[in-house]
This record gives sequence, C-alpha cells and structure tokens, in this order.
Amino acid sequence: MPISKEIHLKSRPKGLPTADNFEFVDVDIPDPGENEVLVQNIYMSVDPYMRGRMREDFALDQVLAGGAVGKVVASNNPGFAVGDYVSNFSGWREYLTSAGSDLSKVDISLAPLSSYLGVMGMPGLTAYGGLLVTGELKDGETVFVSAASGAVGSVVGQIAKVKGCTVIGSAGSDDKVEQLTGEFGFDHAFNYKTANPLAELRKAAPAGIDVYFENVGGIQLEAALTHMKINGRIPICGMISTYNDDGTPSPGPRNLTETIYKFITMKGFVVSAFAAQQPQFVQDMSGWIKSGKMKYHETIFEGIENAPAAFIGLFDGTNNGKMLVKLAQE
Amino acid sequence: MPISKEIHLKSRPKGLPTADNFEFVDVDIPDPGENEVLVQNIYMSVDPYMRGRMREDFALDQVLAGGAVGKVVASNNPGFAVGDYVSNFSGWREYLTSAGSDLSKVDISLAPLSSYLGVMGMPGLTAYGGLLVTGELKDGETVFVSAASGAVGSVVGQIAKVKGCTVIGSAGSDDKVEQLTGEFGFDHAFNYKTANPLAELRKAAPAGIDVYFENVGGIQLEAALTHMKINGRIPICGMISTYNDDGTPSPGPRNLTETIYKFITMKGFVVSAFAAQQPQFVQDMSGWIKSGKMKYHETIFEGIENAPAAFIGLFDGTNNGKMLVKLAQE
Repeated sequence: MPISKEIHLKSRPKGLPTADNFEFVDVDIPDPGENEVLVQNIYMSVDPYMRGRMREDFALDQVLAGGAVGKVVASNNPGFAVGDYVSNFSGWREYLTSAGSDLSKVDISLAPLSSYLGVMGMPGLTAYGGLLVTGELKDGETVFVSAASGAVGSVVGQIAKVKGCTVIGSAGSDDKVEQLTGEFGFDHAFNYKTANPLAELRKAAPAGIDVYFENVGGIQLEAALTHMKINGRIPICGMISTYNDDGTPSPGPRNLTETIYKFITMKGFVVSAFAAQQPQFVQDMSGWIKSGKMKYHETIFEGIENAPAAFIGLFDGTNNGKMLVKLAQE
Repeated sequence: MPISKEIHLKSRPKGLPTADNFEFVDVDIPDPGENEVLVQNIYMSVDPYMRGRMREDFALDQVLAGGAVGKVVASNNPGFAVGDYVSNFSGWREYLTSAGSDLSKVDISLAPLSSYLGVMGMPGLTAYGGLLVTGELKDGETVFVSAASGAVGSVVGQIAKVKGCTVIGSAGSDDKVEQLTGEFGFDHAFNYKTANPLAELRKAAPAGIDVYFENVGGIQLEAALTHMKINGRIPICGMISTYNDDGTPSPGPRNLTETIYKFITMKGFVVSAFAAQQPQFVQDMSGWIKSGKMKYHETIFEGIENAPAAFIGLFDGTNNGKMLVKLAQE
C-alpha cells in the first residue's frame, strides 16, 4: 500500500504563480478494488493553460490535475495488465487508482514514454489539429508561428515543413531563434523582444502569410493581421502574453478591420476538438519522429517536489521544449 | 448630348469628411458609340465603406464611384433597350456611358427601383450572405446585431426573425431602439450610448449568443465575445466605430481569449463573396418584401448637389435606413 505525495492548490495565484500557491500532501493509497487499476505516474506535464484553470476552475485544497504517463502496478481490471503504460489526466500526484475509463494505453515501441506528454500527446495533437484542421493548412503555404520554440510551436513549424511550407517563427531569445532555423529547419526566425515583428514578416514573406498560428497575442497578432494574405486563417491556440495580467487584461489588436477586406478567419480551439484526428495523428507523428523529420526537446525537473518550480518556470522561459516532471524511474 | 454633373474627390478626409473634400464638375456626354449604352442614374447610394476607400483607393481629382440604379436612355447594344432599368457601380454622376458588362438589369416588378440599392441590392446581399453563409446561421439560434437600424443591420435582424431566431439589436438613439422592437420585430433592443451592452445581452439572452453580426467594433464586440456560446460565430461586416480615427486606431477587444475555450470563429467578409448566392437572394428577398416580413426605410436626399451632405450624414446618425440620393425622376 504505497503512500502517494500529491499537490493541492492552496491559494489562487495573483499574477505570476509562486511556491506559496501549492501544498504537498501525503495520501495512503488502498489496494485497487474490483475492476480498478493502480497506476504509478512516471512523468507529469506542466502546461501554460493550467494557469487559467487556477483562476476558478481548480478547487482550493484539492489535488490539481493534468496530463501524466505511468505504469500499471496492480490491476483488477481485465483491460489492463501490470506493466502496461498508460496516459491519464491525473498528474500532480505519484499514484492514482482508476476504474480504467480515464486511462489510454500508449505504445512505447512507437515513441518514448515521455513523448506522450509532448509531441505524441496533447501538445502534439494541439499543433497537428490546430494547423491542419482549424488552420486548414494547404501544402506549400506560408506559415507564421509565435512561441515557436515551445512544445506546441516547434511541432507546428515542423509539420508545416513536412507539408512543404515556408515557415517563420518567433521566440524570446537569440538561442531559441538559432534553434528554430538550425535544428528545427524553419526558413526564418526572429527574437520578438529585439526585432520588429512586422518588419520581419515583410522581409521573410514579401507576399504575405497564409496561416498565423497564434500563441501569444499582442503586437505579434497585430503584425500578422497587417501582413496576412487574402483568405488567411488564424487558429487561436493561446495568448500567453495576457495570461498573467492581474485583472487588467491587455487591449486587443488595433487592426481587426484587416479581417474584412482580406476575408480573414480567426478561430479559437482547444485540443478536445481533435478526437477524430487522434489515430491518424499517432501514426503520422510516430513516422515523422522515426524518420528524423520531427525533433523535440524536453526540460525535465526531477521529483514531484519540483513540480511547482517547473510550472512557474513556464512563464519565465526556463524550459526548452516540453516541460516535464519525472516522478519515478520507467 | 446631355451634360452630366459629377463629383470628384478633391482632398482626402482627415477624420470626419467635410464638404471641402468634394468638387462638382460638369462633363459633356457624347452619344453612345458602337455597342455602348447611355444610362441616366436615378438613385445613387452613399455607404460607410466609401470612407475607407477615400484613404488611398479613390484617386484625387477623379470622379468617385459607388452603387447606382438608373434607366437606359440610348443604346447601341443589343442586350439593352431604352427604358431598361439597370444597376451599376458608377454613382456620384448623373449619366454614364457603358459597354454593358458593368450593368445588371433589375426587375421593378419584384421590388421598387430604389430598393436595389438597399434591401434588394448590396446592403441586402451583405446581410443575407454575412448572416447565412459567413455566420452559418441555423434556425432558432440567438443573434445579436449592432448598428441594427442601419441598411444592413435591419435586414440581418429581419432575416433572423424569418429563420425563427431570437434577435437582439443595438442602435444609437431611443427612437431607433423603439423601431427595432416595434416595426422590425426584434425581440430585444438597446441604446448602446446609454445602456451597458453586456448587461443587456445577459438580460435578453441568458443562455448566450450564437451569432454576433459585427458592424461596429469596440465595447459591443467585447460584450459579445464575453457572452458568446460555445461554437459561436462572429461575421465581421464592419467596425464603423473605428472608421474616423485619424491615425490613432482604437484598441481591439481585451478578451479575444474568449475565442479559445468557446471555439469562436471570427470571420471578415465583403459582399463580393456572395455572387453565388445572388439569384437565391433576389428570390427570397422579393418574397419577404411582398409578404410583409421585410420592412425597410430610405432616407433620400434630393439632387446630386446634396450627395456630400448625405455621405457625411452617415457618420452622425442622420439617416434612418438606407441613405440615398435621388438624381432624376423615375
């Protein structure tokens, strides 16, 4: 009967989250009951969207939730055997007991276990669905993606390259910019903190942008609207530049009228929209990883004690690629 | 050989247009040449979008252009007979000579001649296509339209009523608000200058808005985003509240992130997108007018001398319904 350390939301963050917002609690885990499965989490994910859910969605003094992957360590459910690897949405804890319906088996012969929280998991499917379904990307178009070195953005850019597109990315440091045009194969990249986004777009894509994959909001959205082509699409995945505004949200772009004469579509989405694409996504992504067309990085914090620091690090650029916390050995 | 008075753009408006921006010029009109048609314009249209085109699109010291309807007074073209009524895009002048390809015959047995510049013409098709095609309206949904007493907005609301929808409209005076719920049959209407748009939407449609037909921008767009339902659509027809900003455009809505979790689509359009819907539109609209389901008003200025005043009046609420200038007797 293991003891599971889990993390509760102790108070709601004001502005940037701090360690004080979290509390560690030890919980005794009973043996699994009839049809139940006991899972030991091996990796848990921290993601920017969790900041939004901390505003009112997550209950205070309850365990937080989020993506995780782990191993079945005991099972009374005929659908799961000890040793099976599963993804679940019960992160922020070391062990969970489940009736099985919230577990999905993952195949580590297709890709490494941790990648099911990144390129093979929610961020990967977010990029895939947002670009191909919501963004209706066509082969050979011109794509701009902000936060391009992140878990979603880097996949967006590489999928666009697979599709024969011209790809422009922005990131917040010169090192990340170099990674975009180097390792990830983007055609052009710029540091949004030091460059003028509109000037960069004009230089890199004189004829304009077909798809802007929106992760940040603010002046990059404004620049994209100005430089979109006729019939351009803006799938809106996130606007991280506004997430930590404390009660005084930033104004939107001053040039939404650009949408009118250019027939621009802006469309928000979350990954739940792409359940139908999941099987094709797993097949495509596994192939791209194996053929070297899809590269990714993980920043892994060790031990559940460091999960709050990993989460907070999302907002100051600590991570390079997907931010994970490793809770146990595979 | 008639003399045609026409109006040139003398200077580009700064902020609100003034009479000084326009110049009247008399032009000798030659007899029509081979295959040519001579048309006398009877009504010309003034529309808010023309303000945008005066920024750089319309040439200085050249005749302006815009929708007009008139009568064929001489013809060497076998496709047109003297007495035919035609619509054209050569307003702001009394006569025009045409090779015919830019003329469309209109049938005054279906609807009055002047209505082909309003409900039966470009504003009507803008409303029809924007609501049903871009907005993907479904029967019984809840619709909010701003600038609802205008040439486009009043048609949007009445089409939505034909489709069994709950319809909310906003306008800029108490008289117009009364007209919306009275004559036009809207379910709820408010004066955006004195009421709180978000509070009005919440009161009128507690479950939220499916389609917001966007004509104005600003706080009404912000209120609509906050109160949209999941999968809501915002066809963007115009943002008249920003048209006269002189080099300092207004900021956009602070809550574009609403689009993400609510899967909201915002899509700009202009009427040229709906050429394929034109025949069905003419048939539907004529039927709705004859059955009393589609009411409309016209504000008619007499004489081409008053065209600048009619245009300027668009921006201070002078008009009730479609603003027209009558150039000749039918």
